[in-house]
Amino acid sequence: MRALEEKIVKEGLVLDGNVLKVGSFLNQMVDTSLAQEMAQEVVRLYKGVPVNKVVTIEASGIAIGFAVAAAMGVPLVFVKKSHASNVSGNVLTARIHSYTHSTDYTATVSADYITKDDCVLIVDDFLANGEALRGLIEIIRSAGATLAGCAVQIEKGFQGGGDQLRSEGVRVESLAIIEKMSVEEGITFRR
Amino acid sequence: MRALEEKIVKEGLVLDGNVLKVGSFLNQMVDTSLAQEMAQEVVRLYKGVPVNKVVTIEASGIAIGFAVAAAMGVPLVFVKKSHASNVSGNVLTARIHSYTHSTDYTATVSADYITKDDCVLIVDDFLANGEALRGLIEIIRSAGATLAGCAVQIEKGFQGGGDQLRSEGVRVESLAIIEKMSVEEGITFRR
Repeated sequence: MRALEEKIVKEGLVLDGNVLKVGSFLNQMVDTSLAQEMAQEVVRLYKGVPVNKVVTIEASGIAIGFAVAAAMGVPLVFVKKSHASNVSGNVLTARIHSYTHSTDYTATVSADYITKDDCVLIVDDFLANGEALRGLIEIIRSAGATLAGCAVQIEKGFQGGGDQLRSEGVRVESLAIIEKMSVEEGITFRR
Repeated sequence: MRALEEKIVKEGLVLDGNVLKVGSFLNQMVDTSLAQEMAQEVVRLYKGVPVNKVVTIEASGIAIGFAVAAAMGVPLVFVKKSHASNVSGNVLTARIHSYTHSTDYTATVSADYITKDDCVLIVDDFLANGEALRGLIEIIRSAGATLAGCAVQIEKGFQGGGDQLRSEGVRVESLAIIEKMSVEEGITFRR
């Protein structure tokens, strides 16, 4: 998506260790207008698929998850990164490794909110190794729900998580795919 | 706001310890249509105020924060509950006590995203003791920004945090104020 790629080039900051900082418009300060444009693009990509629920994971997936769910006219479910005191009853869980924070956590959601009757679109801000998406897919499958696919704002293509999921038959749509990036040479997008 | 009060009565669950569960439409599964109605009501309440940024705190404030910011056509900034590795440079912080989780945390946001030129509306899902709002207000004031006020989905009026802030001159608009609630007698709203 051109508007997103232009924004990444203009405001994104490549740091050592494969870190891309996009805090000025995506995951600290959110450009709500661009997010709504991105949501419309996701609606277009998944046109004809009977999605009835969007699922994301807290915290930075919630903004784009809300935008997509609102554009589709369906509810947003956000999975928590820990078992909060306000999640009770039967729960669905998945163990997820975070490379960003070098830690494991148990993603948790009430079993009331994802059921076998749902056709779910997973939405997240970033896709790198694919650990978070895998955890969400595990939760959706354990609920017996149908997985429509995934929609991601920025995929770090060079980390391989997205292509691995695609090779397993999961539909993964990313609005911008970074093929390579470095402090010296900047960002190259996949064409 | 009548639609919200009706939803709380229909789907909210009062538990011991002043806990109100509204996970089915507000803070686990989000009714995006109702959230957008609520956002329009916040726009109406703050009409004429030159808000140029909405600030909330992760995680459950982000959905309604996004909805309000999008409806106002301004960016959303979400303050983090910990000092994440992707927040660097100068930061603004405030120490906040969470009664829900019986713990303290340091709310943190990059100083780039809230500045003295901003007129900020704080948006959050719940208001009880007011600790989270106080932390956000502290951050906004330490940035030298102007505080337009606060907008909250559900205020637990009986816990006093909202009225204390109002008595200090802070504008606090809550879309539903619970005057009292109990497992036995249910919910009474403030009129």
